[in-house]
Amino acid sequence: MHDGSTVTKLAISLGDPAGIGPEIVVAALHQSPAWCRTTVIFGDEAPLQQAAHALGVALPNVEIRPSRQCFGADVRLGAPSVTSGAAAVAYLEAATASVRAGECAALVTAPLSKLWTQRAGFGFPGHTEFLAERCGVSQVVMMFAGPRLKVALATVHCALADVPTRLTVPRLTGVIELLDAALRRDFGIAAPRIAVVGLNPHAGEQGLLGCEEQTVIVPAMAAAQVHGTLVGPWVPDAAFRMALDGHADAVVAMYHDQGLIPVKLIDFDDAVNVTLGLPIVRTSPDHGTAFDIAGQGIARATSMNAAIRLAQHMVQIRAHASAV
Amino acid sequence: MHDGSTVTKLAISLGDPAGIGPEIVVAALHQSPAWCRTTVIFGDEAPLQQAAHALGVALPNVEIRPSRQCFGADVRLGAPSVTSGAAAVAYLEAATASVRAGECAALVTAPLSKLWTQRAGFGFPGHTEFLAERCGVSQVVMMFAGPRLKVALATVHCALADVPTRLTVPRLTGVIELLDAALRRDFGIAAPRIAVVGLNPHAGEQGLLGCEEQTVIVPAMAAAQVHGTLVGPWVPDAAFRMALDGHADAVVAMYHDQGLIPVKLIDFDDAVNVTLGLPIVRTSPDHGTAFDIAGQGIARATSMNAAIRLAQHMVQIRAHASAV
Repeated sequence: MHDGSTVTKLAISLGDPAGIGPEIVVAALHQSPAWCRTTVIFGDEAPLQQAAHALGVALPNVEIRPSRQCFGADVRLGAPSVTSGAAAVAYLEAATASVRAGECAALVTAPLSKLWTQRAGFGFPGHTEFLAERCGVSQVVMMFAGPRLKVALATVHCALADVPTRLTVPRLTGVIELLDAALRRDFGIAAPRIAVVGLNPHAGEQGLLGCEEQTVIVPAMAAAQVHGTLVGPWVPDAAFRMALDGHADAVVAMYHDQGLIPVKLIDFDDAVNVTLGLPIVRTSPDHGTAFDIAGQGIARATSMNAAIRLAQHMVQIRAHASAV
Repeated sequence: MHDGSTVTKLAISLGDPAGIGPEIVVAALHQSPAWCRTTVIFGDEAPLQQAAHALGVALPNVEIRPSRQCFGADVRLGAPSVTSGAAAVAYLEAATASVRAGECAALVTAPLSKLWTQRAGFGFPGHTEFLAERCGVSQVVMMFAGPRLKVALATVHCALADVPTRLTVPRLTGVIELLDAALRRDFGIAAPRIAVVGLNPHAGEQGLLGCEEQTVIVPAMAAAQVHGTLVGPWVPDAAFRMALDGHADAVVAMYHDQGLIPVKLIDFDDAVNVTLGLPIVRTSPDHGTAFDIAGQGIARATSMNAAIRLAQHMVQIRAHASAV
């Protein structure tokens, strides 16, 4: 079907067309016109034209793969609906199929709405779970990579009350091993230093403030087979400062906000969401659909820019390693 | 017993004498010799002499109130014990009594060890709970105040698994009201803007990722009677950036690490722990006993310096308000 040696194109799924996805994709390509030659957008032309209009620029000359249903004409910016949710799903399905078929080298996804994709019948909490199922892998890891912090999440989209029961020895062991493998394969770090964060305040303070450090985290660290080094469990409120100070290459956070609060404070606009454990390279911006500002031309494209750059970088590192 | 108009001295409790408390107290007074005239140290001379020796300075000429037991001679730096835990409790009891009696105007506490004070028979999880009991108030709030962020905690020292059940409408309502009152009385903000953070990722995403935003947080915000303004629940991973960008004077975090991770990343050495809801002014550094580096002369005194300065500032604002 394709000549593997020439596959360098990135597939971008446009996300919810009522959100800021079209704007940030158009803005990123407008700022870096050379990317137009190496990008395929999976999305409809109507929201892209609207976005270009909102930004006051011409639609970049890039390959666009519209959906079969041609959503978009009846989607209003800032007004998500079952239609816009269904469009986001259709774009994602097509872009993923293209990368899995080897037609594109990596997948970059613009944001979708959990609520509106579910109302449109999407059977997954988010991109990550969908991609795991489509690629037939049992465990994936959500990582956020910024210029200063790299954080993998041991649990992701669940209520805070469910975190302690979702955090199991096999799951955490797998997260640590996938992070170690990805840092070596996709980030070119030969012997990664990984820090594991505690779950409880003060990392449990010897069991006074919770026991999961002893019952889950330490056993998982002992079970994990890594090529690099493993330290922890670190006291959560000190861990990210220690990582910033150079004491670890990446950090494993136990739950969504434990990892995301520091990433968004420190790497702000520049952090990228990376899915580890997939056979394909997949990145995305670290923000949501931002329906409240869609179409105003004020959404910052910095995270989308960073997501595209990181995907290109990961493709190159993988290609280099397989060429050696 | 005393003439209220002349009470300007701060009481400093020395904390665990095997930790870095003595060092940071000596360092702070050495750096600001004028403070010696307005400070009373509740602690024994032996650990203070050891600390001065470790720092290579003379013991500052400050009033020292030794404990009756005269702990210290048999306490080894870096080696906490039931003895050092009992010493920390004795210093705290005496300093608190002095402030409650009106002999000192505010209490600044050096760190103690939860583990070793409990082994010495201390019946409280930490300073804050002790002070609430001694001052006869039913609810106090732990706040961290730095140059850039002010964060109050709705729950404090408990396992993460216990946070959802500890977070109740009456508790959160009280935290919001005490924060509003303190920002006006102790920080001189006439109409404070308070932001309340969600508990769950994405603030629950309309109930998909947890329901406490609807069942607890929004009802507490509706019940709270404040003089300022109240916004939220904010998405946790964006809330602290929004506060930094000036959209709130202070933030209410739902649990220890949700608040402490950003404070320690952003205000690092300069954040101060303040207890709200007490009749007395009480501050402390935002770090622990650091037994591992005690006696090496490398502990930074910046947070102790900031705790002393903030206590002085709060005393002045209260005095000014009562004089008006």
